[in-house]
Amino acid sequence: MAAFAARTGKRVRPHAKTHKSPLIARMQLDRGAIGLCCAKLGEAEILADAGVGPVLITTEIAGEPKIARLVVLRRRAEVMAAVDDMDVARSLSDAMRAAGLVLDVLVDVNIGQERTGVRPDGAGELSACVASLPGLQFRGIQAYDGHLQHVYGEAERHAKWRESADRMLAARDDVLGRGLEVEILSTAGTGTCAFAAELSEVTELQAGSYPFMDCDYGRVEGLPYESSLTVLTSVVSRQRGDVAVLDAGWKAISTDAGVPVVKGRSELAYTTKGDEHGGVHGARMTPGERIELIPSHCDTTVNLYDEYVCMRHGVVEGVWPIAARGRIQ
Amino acid sequence: MAAFAARTGKRVRPHAKTHKSPLIARMQLDRGAIGLCCAKLGEAEILADAGVGPVLITTEIAGEPKIARLVVLRRRAEVMAAVDDMDVARSLSDAMRAAGLVLDVLVDVNIGQERTGVRPDGAGELSACVASLPGLQFRGIQAYDGHLQHVYGEAERHAKWRESADRMLAARDDVLGRGLEVEILSTAGTGTCAFAAELSEVTELQAGSYPFMDCDYGRVEGLPYESSLTVLTSVVSRQRGDVAVLDAGWKAISTDAGVPVVKGRSELAYTTKGDEHGGVHGARMTPGERIELIPSHCDTTVNLYDEYVCMRHGVVEGVWPIAARGRIQ
Repeated sequence: MAAFAARTGKRVRPHAKTHKSPLIARMQLDRGAIGLCCAKLGEAEILADAGVGPVLITTEIAGEPKIARLVVLRRRAEVMAAVDDMDVARSLSDAMRAAGLVLDVLVDVNIGQERTGVRPDGAGELSACVASLPGLQFRGIQAYDGHLQHVYGEAERHAKWRESADRMLAARDDVLGRGLEVEILSTAGTGTCAFAAELSEVTELQAGSYPFMDCDYGRVEGLPYESSLTVLTSVVSRQRGDVAVLDAGWKAISTDAGVPVVKGRSELAYTTKGDEHGGVHGARMTPGERIELIPSHCDTTVNLYDEYVCMRHGVVEGVWPIAARGRIQ
Repeated sequence: MAAFAARTGKRVRPHAKTHKSPLIARMQLDRGAIGLCCAKLGEAEILADAGVGPVLITTEIAGEPKIARLVVLRRRAEVMAAVDDMDVARSLSDAMRAAGLVLDVLVDVNIGQERTGVRPDGAGELSACVASLPGLQFRGIQAYDGHLQHVYGEAERHAKWRESADRMLAARDDVLGRGLEVEILSTAGTGTCAFAAELSEVTELQAGSYPFMDCDYGRVEGLPYESSLTVLTSVVSRQRGDVAVLDAGWKAISTDAGVPVVKGRSELAYTTKGDEHGGVHGARMTPGERIELIPSHCDTTVNLYDEYVCMRHGVVEGVWPIAARGRIQ
């Protein structure tokens, strides 16, 4: 990713929601990342604790308790927030002004994911509102295309991306039409960053999954990243022919994006068998035998663990805390 | 559950895989539980650290590293293990004998869940093997009917339970036929413990979910337990009519048993919107507004959190660590 950024001239602000690790965040900064993204305030707090930043919090922050936490965080760290609502912008402004602080703000635009974000034709109005409010500094636009990351076919993904990109550029034009500068245009994930780099208007990429990948991302055509994340499990029972039972169920590996695949043994198929167990079909196995699973979804699997065990050529080189695990608010 | 146990004369060995909390385990012991169940060695280690026991580990333990951990655990705590394989029984025997220890063992029988456990007609042979091995003490049978807990209709659940119960009793007869005593017959979960108590042969119940319940257990007819577990979320965005976006997605609440329900507001429907977000349909909401969700599956949701925040009448009375969170091996 660092090489890609150097080649294309785009900045990278990797998403830390995937790894939740200040240590990996620091490695990304050392390799040229301009900062980190966090999904939640709680993740940003953990990065700030570790002296890592600056941080863009990509989910809107609303409500008194969270805004109070944001003020405390802003006091000690460089933080940028995403906003999609005028009332919330005013609350943030009031809080920052009262604390004698200024918060950098991106206006969040919905370019097709249908989750957070204003419509493209509302971007100018909200941006002007933000720009007018004391305590807030309008910096540009966030336009994340999360709905496109896992479109497997490259041509289909590019065609759909083009539609979203048009919405993003329309939003940018709407903001420019208000006489504002769009210093930052932050977009894309691991599945679309190569496309986003085609556009001169895009200033930075928010990709998160590329350090780990997963078996679902493995099905997405055209990505140059390899899978590095596995869950090590072992057989606990072999009572029925070529079906063995593993010690890894829903609590050990996420299945929101489908079942994991067995690393290096394509003849074996995993099936979930509840909270605590998985089944492996395809060979007669011995209790105690180890099976390495490649998760279907790196983010939600990482969030189940407190540590990475880092291996190279069969040797454990490090055990890294997943310090922001469970920080979901 | 304590009152039910007193009324029926059955012992209760609550399953700690649900709460993963030594503190709640101790409350259960104080109310008459004879010990705890754990799904994994790692949970049992945490309970032992807290001085809580005795513990039955309900998943088979196999392979050198785990057996070595079991020896260390057995040295400092009262532990009982489940076995469904003669080779593994021999490995356990060798390890315990070498350490000068004796491990209590239940023979695990498959009564219809098709996961771990020997067939009912193999229970006698394996039990005789266990009883003959030094370092192991045969105590009886584990026969868990995990496949029946969430059969919603009470009559259907009872009919299916009767089939499983027949397998359990056949396994018991098979063991008795070998001249062995079945001192312990451990079975049932929250959904079947009332049925299991009909049988004089059953000595103890393994129910785990009853302290918390969840919205899926709430659909199971005939259970006297109420839901106590919720996830507190808040609205982060309201950009599309009566759809609001919450700060709670897959990382905040499990969906393996379906989507959560909104507590006290039946007009609202939750939909998952990825790792970090959920959608709530049915009313125009304000960013910052709080929404309380009842999980669809207590066990897998608890495993996402490090603490319980304990509320009574709107007052926080305690913050309890979920000490065995993530201990999945």
